[in-house]
Amino acid sequence: MTTATMLPTQPAELRRIIRAGEFAGVTSGLANGHVQANLAVLPRDLAFDFLLFCQRNPQPCPLLEVIEPGFVEPTFTAPGADISTDVPAYRIYENGEMVAELESVAEVWRDDLVSFLLGCSFSFEAALADCGIPLRHQEARSNVPMYITNIPTRPAGMFSGPMVVSMRPIPQAQIVRAVQVTSRFPDTHGAPIHIGDPDAIGIRDINAPEFGEAVEIRPGETPVFWACGVTPQAVALNCKPPLMITHAPGKMFITDRRDSRLRSHLIAGNHDTNYEDIVLDHDRRGSARSGPRPRRLSSAPRPHVIILGHPGPVVITTRDSTS
Amino acid sequence: MTTATMLPTQPAELRRIIRAGEFAGVTSGLANGHVQANLAVLPRDLAFDFLLFCQRNPQPCPLLEVIEPGFVEPTFTAPGADISTDVPAYRIYENGEMVAELESVAEVWRDDLVSFLLGCSFSFEAALADCGIPLRHQEARSNVPMYITNIPTRPAGMFSGPMVVSMRPIPQAQIVRAVQVTSRFPDTHGAPIHIGDPDAIGIRDINAPEFGEAVEIRPGETPVFWACGVTPQAVALNCKPPLMITHAPGKMFITDRRDSRLRSHLIAGNHDTNYEDIVLDHDRRGSARSGPRPRRLSSAPRPHVIILGHPGPVVITTRDSTS
Repeated sequence: MTTATMLPTQPAELRRIIRAGEFAGVTSGLANGHVQANLAVLPRDLAFDFLLFCQRNPQPCPLLEVIEPGFVEPTFTAPGADISTDVPAYRIYENGEMVAELESVAEVWRDDLVSFLLGCSFSFEAALADCGIPLRHQEARSNVPMYITNIPTRPAGMFSGPMVVSMRPIPQAQIVRAVQVTSRFPDTHGAPIHIGDPDAIGIRDINAPEFGEAVEIRPGETPVFWACGVTPQAVALNCKPPLMITHAPGKMFITDRRDSRLRSHLIAGNHDTNYEDIVLDHDRRGSARSGPRPRRLSSAPRPHVIILGHPGPVVITTRDSTS
Repeated sequence: MTTATMLPTQPAELRRIIRAGEFAGVTSGLANGHVQANLAVLPRDLAFDFLLFCQRNPQPCPLLEVIEPGFVEPTFTAPGADISTDVPAYRIYENGEMVAELESVAEVWRDDLVSFLLGCSFSFEAALADCGIPLRHQEARSNVPMYITNIPTRPAGMFSGPMVVSMRPIPQAQIVRAVQVTSRFPDTHGAPIHIGDPDAIGIRDINAPEFGEAVEIRPGETPVFWACGVTPQAVALNCKPPLMITHAPGKMFITDRRDSRLRSHLIAGNHDTNYEDIVLDHDRRGSARSGPRPRRLSSAPRPHVIILGHPGPVVITTRDSTS
């Protein structure tokens, strides 16, 4: 087993080592500056409901990428990666119960599996620290305290449940700054969900978090609560899907995406669809087709006929490059 | 037919009149300050792909709300409304061809239909005007010019196609302001997709838009391009779904949502999931259950068991209120 100090700093290299079975540890602190992601994999017949759940609850469930049924390559956030092998450890849940922890799920992969990559709080905490806002749980080398609230998520199909939040005590003079800084990271939970009164969101004892460990709240500090990445897995497992695959705790998927890019896309308000990305991605996808492709289902041909029904009269424009 | 000048200014009243068949006109300028929405309705078996397409292409396809299969009430943006009756006019497409224009689709509604409400540029143009940025097509009382570009959208399943953009000439000194202002409206197309060079995005003749009408670009002005709401319908129809229902051009769905709320949610970076909204919505949904409910499919019961797999060890917490 390679130790963390010997590990490379580039995401692609790290994923290669993970894929080869040479590292199966916690990814915290690895590939500094790059976005790490929560993984949730569900069968296709639940995928619409889960995607809709994420769309309705972007603070606890910030979608970085959805990989279509049967595909294993996260084309947008980590081209060339394989989601079935490049996570240090996976957990398999059947009917809501964990039945195995594996270092690869390539052998159990199915053509109907849809993979969801969700933002995690690493980017967001780095930004707080960059602004000089102390993080008590990091100082204490403990896990951030997390609480089940009385805040319902917006249900979608069979998915529903209360929101889970994380808490960080913030000096009162820095609360506005903490709101501003985290508002700029909507893909890693965004602005706080609540400031100040644990009781108001159904937290009975701030010293008894449901997950993680309690931290000291010092005089002059206020507890600030953010939507937590525990929520989507919790809500998904709540409905006991026949199969669900997740990353193992703390063993995240490392993307090529830089934290700063997550940040800048909010400023641009364009959710990462700057057309440069699209064109680059399109070019890369095109060239990638000449090499080995990840497993995929067949897709319908893409005719070049565009029918436009809004806002003018219906116009049919044929853009068939062969005509 | 009621004339526009006699129409009420409140969305709910307007929708009542539309539902009663007393107004079937263009909604531009109605219910000023409230968000109007594009409508796309697809059968459930295409809904995952279309939702994923919107998730991957938020600039041309800014999702305001998705109504689950069989439901007709836009619970989040217009509670009490009926999406099958409250749009002034609908277009029915079968296999990609328009077969009818109707003032209600209640009679043809099916339990497998999923409704997508997408932001339109009305909010965004009002914000530009509020900042003193002139809108040439409004001055000319013409439709905004729109162009098919060489910018590919990110495909999802069977949905793919080029992005359509709208163009507004902006005085050079106001371009930065135009970027800033529209960046604050990600749910109505957000920041520009391109500034300056039509040729760079595949527009051969700026005076010959594919849709809408050409506008004068005066000396000292630069053409600025935004992702256009024509894109999602175009891309959806491109794959010739067996059934697709849309609003008729210019006859939009009027929501209760205020423009200013769209704007503020970007500032908060919270995509409208402020927990106050959720709690209010939850309360309203609960109380609404005692009255008549919109048509819906049965949904699975929602057990109060939460299983959390991340980031600590797996913990099973039973929150069954009956135990």
